[in-house]
Amino acid sequence: MPDLAQTQGRRIALIAGNGSLPCQIADALSGSGRDFRIIAIKGEADEQTRNRASTELGWGEIGRLYKFLKKTGCQDVLLIGGVSKRPDFTSILGDFGTLKRLPTIIRALAGGDDSLLTKVIRLFEDEGYRVVGIRDVAPQLLASSGVLGKMQPKTDDWRDLELALKATQKLGELDIGQAAIAVGGRVVALEGAEGTDAMIERCADLKRVGRIRSKGRAGVLVKAAKPDQDLRVDLPTVGPRTIELAVSAGLAGIAIEAHGALIAEKEETLQRADSAGLFVVGVEKPSDEGAADG
Amino acid sequence: MPDLAQTQGRRIALIAGNGSLPCQIADALSGSGRDFRIIAIKGEADEQTRNRASTELGWGEIGRLYKFLKKTGCQDVLLIGGVSKRPDFTSILGDFGTLKRLPTIIRALAGGDDSLLTKVIRLFEDEGYRVVGIRDVAPQLLASSGVLGKMQPKTDDWRDLELALKATQKLGELDIGQAAIAVGGRVVALEGAEGTDAMIERCADLKRVGRIRSKGRAGVLVKAAKPDQDLRVDLPTVGPRTIELAVSAGLAGIAIEAHGALIAEKEETLQRADSAGLFVVGVEKPSDEGAADG
Repeated sequence: MPDLAQTQGRRIALIAGNGSLPCQIADALSGSGRDFRIIAIKGEADEQTRNRASTELGWGEIGRLYKFLKKTGCQDVLLIGGVSKRPDFTSILGDFGTLKRLPTIIRALAGGDDSLLTKVIRLFEDEGYRVVGIRDVAPQLLASSGVLGKMQPKTDDWRDLELALKATQKLGELDIGQAAIAVGGRVVALEGAEGTDAMIERCADLKRVGRIRSKGRAGVLVKAAKPDQDLRVDLPTVGPRTIELAVSAGLAGIAIEAHGALIAEKEETLQRADSAGLFVVGVEKPSDEGAADG
Repeated sequence: MPDLAQTQGRRIALIAGNGSLPCQIADALSGSGRDFRIIAIKGEADEQTRNRASTELGWGEIGRLYKFLKKTGCQDVLLIGGVSKRPDFTSILGDFGTLKRLPTIIRALAGGDDSLLTKVIRLFEDEGYRVVGIRDVAPQLLASSGVLGKMQPKTDDWRDLELALKATQKLGELDIGQAAIAVGGRVVALEGAEGTDAMIERCADLKRVGRIRSKGRAGVLVKAAKPDQDLRVDLPTVGPRTIELAVSAGLAGIAIEAHGALIAEKEETLQRADSAGLFVVGVEKPSDEGAADG
């Protein structure tokens, strides 16, 4: 992954999907005097993002995208924001630059889903661009270590946090999910293909029907990156919706990997957690030795 | 755990909950010339079981239970079949023998859910009885190794099987769940507090909405015991319902731990699997060394 120091002085292209994150990144880059251009993804980028974008391009306009990158002198590429609609082949059959690269693109996109983003990275790198991540250009947006909101975890919460953290590490070793929930000294839910939100909802359901028992608010959601996760394009993220779900599941708090996870809409997220009495903690990933003993 | 050889010549008390398993065990014990008595749990045991039972006792009749064990000379106890209703304190406040032991029982039942059965075992052991499991008295009912039905796994299925098996081992190390599903070279679901059935249903839902993609029937459910699981009372089990759910989730097959898991209603279960084109495999648990390398 690129060295932070080497990103100074290079113009960054923000290829922006949905959500408020692209604008937050733009603010952070502006704040640190970085030079950048925003390319809004058609049908994905929010209005706010589109208003700040230099251009707007659809999936089939890869030729135009590369032309834009060349014309504007962007050397680094940052892929940021959500993508709600996976591009299908019809939308990819676009301009000449796309068609020219189609064999490469098809080769790259074939295969397992989970490495799709890694393959997209390679597509840019093959054209001589460098793909950077939030960690490289705006590390201040990542979760810091320690208690981040107003609430403090209690003794039982720390125990649940440790357990769920250990579970996410095991999950990570198998390249499965990023998140786990422990309640009352027991890991009760592990993230698979359903994603973090659905996993928290399941936990809420299990509490409702009494398959997870707890007195009052109890349990901790931990979200951490997988060991081999490419944090340039796939950063573990929590946001206001995560807090909302954690509250409805009756959890005591959430913990995310310090320096390796993002709190989207940080202010609002922490405010919601505070007012709901939920703690938010940034945890350092234990070293392998630390993880080995029980 | 008791040595199999030492169970010969001892009279066994089958304390029987619901399902057809108690009768299957009874048949197996009869077949091998074992001496036993059936005690049906009131409100739980099936009619078939009740018809063969020497007595029927409710949760509050622990005094009567011990009297029965003493009178009939039972030395070993086998807890078998499901319990749909957890006993509450009202139903426990029963006969004098129960009341006398109440402080011990309450002490034993307090604490985490998952070790409840271990605590029940201790209650029997404290009175001088030995708790045995299916492995000890009817090992022929456990899954054997190899392909058990008519369908054979294909190359991709073996890969998914390996992946899901590895995942159950990681789960087991953390004492979480017994089951995992891999589809298309990726672990997509891990069992937590929701149980195996709910996990398979989740997998079906994720396939329906396209979060798990597969061509035709694909994916393998693996169910294996946790390393510290007390197989006397908590044997991983699959049955006709498991097959039904696996079919509706579009899985290619299921694998269970050979010698460490049970196929309930074996004939019907395998028949259903065969007619649905689902494979059923008994897998040996890999040794730790085998599990370490990827």
